[in-house]
Amino acid sequence: MFLVNRLEDVELPPIGATDVLVKMLAAPINPSDINMIQGTYAILPDLPAVGGNEGVAQIVEVGGQVTSLKAGDWVIPKDAGLGTWRTAAVLAEDDVISLPNNIPLLSAATLGVNPCTALRMLADFEDLKPGDSVIQNAANSGVGQAVIQIAAAKGISTINVVRDRPEFTQLSDRLKAMGGTHVIKEEALRRPEMKEMFKTCPKPKLALNGVGGKSATELLRHLQYGGSMVTYGGMAKKPVTVPVSALIFKDVKVRGFWVTQWKRDHSSDGKAFRAMLDELCQLVQQGKLTAPACTEVSLQDYGEALDSAMQPFTSAKQVLIM
Amino acid sequence: MFLVNRLEDVELPPIGATDVLVKMLAAPINPSDINMIQGTYAILPDLPAVGGNEGVAQIVEVGGQVTSLKAGDWVIPKDAGLGTWRTAAVLAEDDVISLPNNIPLLSAATLGVNPCTALRMLADFEDLKPGDSVIQNAANSGVGQAVIQIAAAKGISTINVVRDRPEFTQLSDRLKAMGGTHVIKEEALRRPEMKEMFKTCPKPKLALNGVGGKSATELLRHLQYGGSMVTYGGMAKKPVTVPVSALIFKDVKVRGFWVTQWKRDHSSDGKAFRAMLDELCQLVQQGKLTAPACTEVSLQDYGEALDSAMQPFTSAKQVLIM
Repeated sequence: MFLVNRLEDVELPPIGATDVLVKMLAAPINPSDINMIQGTYAILPDLPAVGGNEGVAQIVEVGGQVTSLKAGDWVIPKDAGLGTWRTAAVLAEDDVISLPNNIPLLSAATLGVNPCTALRMLADFEDLKPGDSVIQNAANSGVGQAVIQIAAAKGISTINVVRDRPEFTQLSDRLKAMGGTHVIKEEALRRPEMKEMFKTCPKPKLALNGVGGKSATELLRHLQYGGSMVTYGGMAKKPVTVPVSALIFKDVKVRGFWVTQWKRDHSSDGKAFRAMLDELCQLVQQGKLTAPACTEVSLQDYGEALDSAMQPFTSAKQVLIM
Repeated sequence: MFLVNRLEDVELPPIGATDVLVKMLAAPINPSDINMIQGTYAILPDLPAVGGNEGVAQIVEVGGQVTSLKAGDWVIPKDAGLGTWRTAAVLAEDDVISLPNNIPLLSAATLGVNPCTALRMLADFEDLKPGDSVIQNAANSGVGQAVIQIAAAKGISTINVVRDRPEFTQLSDRLKAMGGTHVIKEEALRRPEMKEMFKTCPKPKLALNGVGGKSATELLRHLQYGGSMVTYGGMAKKPVTVPVSALIFKDVKVRGFWVTQWKRDHSSDGKAFRAMLDELCQLVQQGKLTAPACTEVSLQDYGEALDSAMQPFTSAKQVLIM
């Protein structure tokens, strides 16, 4: 397959009675967007298609039967596959959900995937109480940063694992400033100093895995008896390897989470999604949840933004500004 | 550590008010008994210790305050670690639980571990209904044979995976005669004929893994969306490897089960264990659950029996007869 990404001018369709005309404001480039373009993602659009699955838009005009939205409202997609890398679109009222428009633009543009993933993983697998702890790898990823902040807001400690790098100390300081309790390097997971840490921090009930391979196995070793590991990504492109003894004698539960599936499973009643966004927006308004470091790029420069997003160790998310 | 197994004559202690004097009738040699002797099991007794964790005994005499048991009753251990490879013992009333003594001796001697494991795994992880299917490896093991029979009694199809061997056809016939729906070789799991099978048999909601390694990964591939794989053994001595995509996009749940832990978790109220044994004994009495192929060996010949039990591809369980 030969795939071309290009900017095109497309005539907008007329606005039907249950449609809305939106102006896209900002849309990030996420790893899953790139996998979708590469054809390696679990869901693939019919081609030609508009790239991008996340972003915030402003309502410009609504059809005659639209009651839930009005001009000026900010909205985000309800499901993946909407195609957010464009300046304007005519969408079904039911394809989008509103956000308050008094939160930062970059927070709104990046709220629908990573913070939702983080919140659900913290809520749906283990009954976490203030004082409990969670361990995660890829702690500097979009999900990782949201996990740190949402957990901190709930009084839950986080043990944050990152790959070693020259500027480890700065990264550690940044993640701690955001609410991370401990920040450690991958290699430290196998070292005796972990025992020291667990003298003051309870063993985690929950491990969040965005990497796979050895990193995931190391997270498992530190789980509490009966705890869960939830995999939401596989950056290392290696499977999750679980010792038989951990399953039988430690009763660890190995699960996965995909926010797109969660949204689809909850699409018939919109209340769960609404409640989740309200909770997240409240954290944003209280200053407890900030967007990850972003590089704002004009839509015209999408080529450079895609290249940057594909570099390893990218520390800033590329966000297209329309 | 240098470990000696030997027969010894030991003076029995006096029978206390809440004790029972039992005569052991028959006790199997299970792989976990051998791991315990080798010091590689999750629970290890203080030494010197009597080997064996399973078996059936007959009550000879009861202490003055014993009300739940009487002379002549058949009993089995409630927990691992009792030491069943002996002719007689004085035990606490609470260490044992009664069985009807009108079931075959070998069924009684082998009921407390493998059939309990099979029944719980079929009951506690997925809501299986008649017509549903289960896939398992190690289908010829003690647990495997119990799974086939208990599932068949509930109207659940089983897809039984065994290692290839010269007498595959005889084994397949035997497992099918016992109620197994499909019997296939490990290699077949990767072949297109699986698709043929799934035209008539629903994809399994549950996979039972007693092997680990590649075999477990192959079971996972055939699970239904959202299904569970439960690991109860690791004969291959290799970990369970789970593709990240199976966790995220197929929502497979990877769990473990240890019947000893289940018994301990349910020891405070005895009802769940009683109900499970009643259900299993009823299946035995109806001819729907038979003991696995056993070789009866006199206690004096325990050395040969241990050697035989440690051979690969053993098709008969060694049972010590006292």
